Amino acid sequence: MTTLQKLTMVGERLLRDQLLDVLRRHGVSGWTITLAEGEGSRGVRASEWAGRNVQIDTLVSRETADAILEEVSERFFEDWALIAYTVEARVLRGDKYLS
Amino acid sequence: MTTLQKLTMVGERLLRDQLLDVLRRHGVSGWTITLAEGEGSRGVRASEWAGRNVQIDTLVSRETADAILEEVSERFFEDWALIAYTVEARVLRGDKYLS
Amino acid sequence: MTTLQKLTMVGERLLRDQLLDVLRRHGVSGWTITLAEGEGSRGVRASEWAGRNVQIDTLVSRETADAILEEVSERFFEDWALIAYTVEARVLRGDKYLS
Repeated sequence: MTTLQKLTMVGERLLRDQLLDVLRRHGVSGWTITLAEGEGSRGVRASEWAGRNVQIDTLVSRETADAILEEVSERFFEDWALIAYTVEARVLRGDKYLS
Repeated sequence: MTTLQKLTMVGERLLRDQLLDVLRRHGVSGWTITLAEGEGSRGVRASEWAGRNVQIDTLVSRETADAILEEVSERFFEDWALIAYTVEARVLRGDKYLS
Repeated sequence: MTTLQKLTMVGERLLRDQLLDVLRRHGVSGWTITLAEGEGSRGVRASEWAGRNVQIDTLVSRETADAILEEVSERFFEDWALIAYTVEARVLRGDKYLS
């Protein structure tokens, strides 16, 4: 069992490929994506289902999580309603997620 | 980076608007919603996909999380198969989620 | 409030029934399932939406979580791109999830 960070990013679907590019550049090779509806502090509502948001989850080291969060913050937080956070996870055979 | 609680509630779709009202009344202005299928201790199965359940996630202070959980418990736990829990999260620019 | 483990497994949809059987055999009677798209270390991409992956979440004791993870590891990790991890959660009326 390895302790890793589950990194979650929720944002508009338009950001999907750019966010995955950030992950790849930081050596991440696996993630899951779910569709989400969101209402944020801007008051914009994605009312059509399977709407505007994607949630991207991945498992990374704390160091990688922090590097990704810093880049994401600098590039997207000014202009996009993006949410990003990490949660500590105990991962089965987690060593394979360490890049 | 701010330490917040990720509050998750999973319940029947019929509860959706009532749960969001609870969030709003506690000053929460952002959340994500995903569709979920569930099987619970009552043995009721939502077999049609995109079925009966919604999962609502939001990021709040511990104090707000506890207040929401208490209200949700009192109002819905008797009659509904509702799941509610919190997980500690490190949130990028998390101060904006503090109401 | 009870401290439990939120156990998450993400894998191909074909595994769904087998994974739920594992949960049932360990006394778990509730879970939620969401559809997820995934890209894993094998480079296989589930590009069709509502694609090849399911995410199964459940709340269990630490002991049950470890027993499930051990079985899942032995049975599926050789042949399947399965992800399994636990996160600590504070659960409202969580005692009912203890089997």
